[in-house]
Amino acid sequence: MNTSLHFTPATAPNAHTCPGSFIVFEGGDGSGKTTQIRLLADALRQKLKKVTVTREPGGTKIGEKLRALVLEHGNGEIDAHTEALIFAASRAAHAHQLIRPCIERGEVVLCDRYIDSSAAYQGAGRGLGIDTIVDLSRWATNDLTPDLTIVLDVPLAVSRERAGARGAADRMESESDDFHAALSDTFIQRAAADPARYVVIDATGTLDDVHQRVLDAVSAPLGLGA
Amino acid sequence: MNTSLHFTPATAPNAHTCPGSFIVFEGGDGSGKTTQIRLLADALRQKLKKVTVTREPGGTKIGEKLRALVLEHGNGEIDAHTEALIFAASRAAHAHQLIRPCIERGEVVLCDRYIDSSAAYQGAGRGLGIDTIVDLSRWATNDLTPDLTIVLDVPLAVSRERAGARGAADRMESESDDFHAALSDTFIQRAAADPARYVVIDATGTLDDVHQRVLDAVSAPLGLGA
Repeated sequence: MNTSLHFTPATAPNAHTCPGSFIVFEGGDGSGKTTQIRLLADALRQKLKKVTVTREPGGTKIGEKLRALVLEHGNGEIDAHTEALIFAASRAAHAHQLIRPCIERGEVVLCDRYIDSSAAYQGAGRGLGIDTIVDLSRWATNDLTPDLTIVLDVPLAVSRERAGARGAADRMESESDDFHAALSDTFIQRAAADPARYVVIDATGTLDDVHQRVLDAVSAPLGLGA
Repeated sequence: MNTSLHFTPATAPNAHTCPGSFIVFEGGDGSGKTTQIRLLADALRQKLKKVTVTREPGGTKIGEKLRALVLEHGNGEIDAHTEALIFAASRAAHAHQLIRPCIERGEVVLCDRYIDSSAAYQGAGRGLGIDTIVDLSRWATNDLTPDLTIVLDVPLAVSRERAGARGAADRMESESDDFHAALSDTFIQRAAADPARYVVIDATGTLDDVHQRVLDAVSAPLGLGA
């Protein structure tokens, strides 16, 4: 059913006006987001005052409870609209309670997944429409837009192998290869459409190789010099 | 912040095409919805094959868990956008998993609260905008519209006294008189704007008095005769 939502922002839909920086990592399960965020946070803490690492869904007390509802097996049927709204609720809490206050204080926030994950999983993967899902998240967050989104790009076979090594798959990880290919396409296409706010990084190779590519990507936006 | 969402339905935004009937009770806490739904269900079960009684938020396994998150104290701060999205998620599950399947089978569904409660509580009470919140729920439910919404109208002093007699107040019941007056105004105004789909019933007087008014209201829509 081709129903859609359209978001009307109160102000221009561009970057937040806070002194801090909001950097998001996107990519499929097993693309290395969590590890690369940890390595980047360690590096940045040697140069910057305060770095906050967080993740979606989750990041707040209510958000972590919503995360458990939607990712764990055993909560009964969850249709696509319900799933999208639970993710949006978790994101709203995260943006209002944690991310915006941090960047208002001048901190750097590194976030594991944000709006593009919903665009990919619920918009493309579940067929609810990418624009509709992006609009829902923009409304939920009062249009809190990342300064930079880093897409970690790896072949599906590599990400499957890495994710598999972590043990039991959750509801999302259990989806088909076609579903995960649609996710990857969505990340790449959204990055291509807004090159000022996105960078796609080849996430194959050693941890250090990828870490160096990430450092190169954040150097200019964070004013870290060469 | 005056951001808004706009819903574009795939089809004309009018009634479902299912053989059953979907009747909603709205009104503030203590207006007598739960009792009147029980009395109506008992009366209808003597004449109709199958009557399903349900409530919002809740009505499904995932919906009841969302209900607990948003109504119980102690889940940390819940901002207005998060609250609205949790209610919308619960409603999506309810519409897709329970209400639509019931009315597709020809049943009568009696539901304690639906979209108008969100319009009142989150749209008016929390200031997110009535149209925005209605659009969010229409998208969540794939535009599942009640055949009839019965608004139980009582003075605030009466509903406060009835609700107080039930014991400890939840997060919603704990709100101010001004908040609850805004809710009541929203129910009455939405009913006035669509008289074919709403009836406002004076819910003061004895249970039997109000029950008779409810029976009169549903008689024609359910084809029950005089």
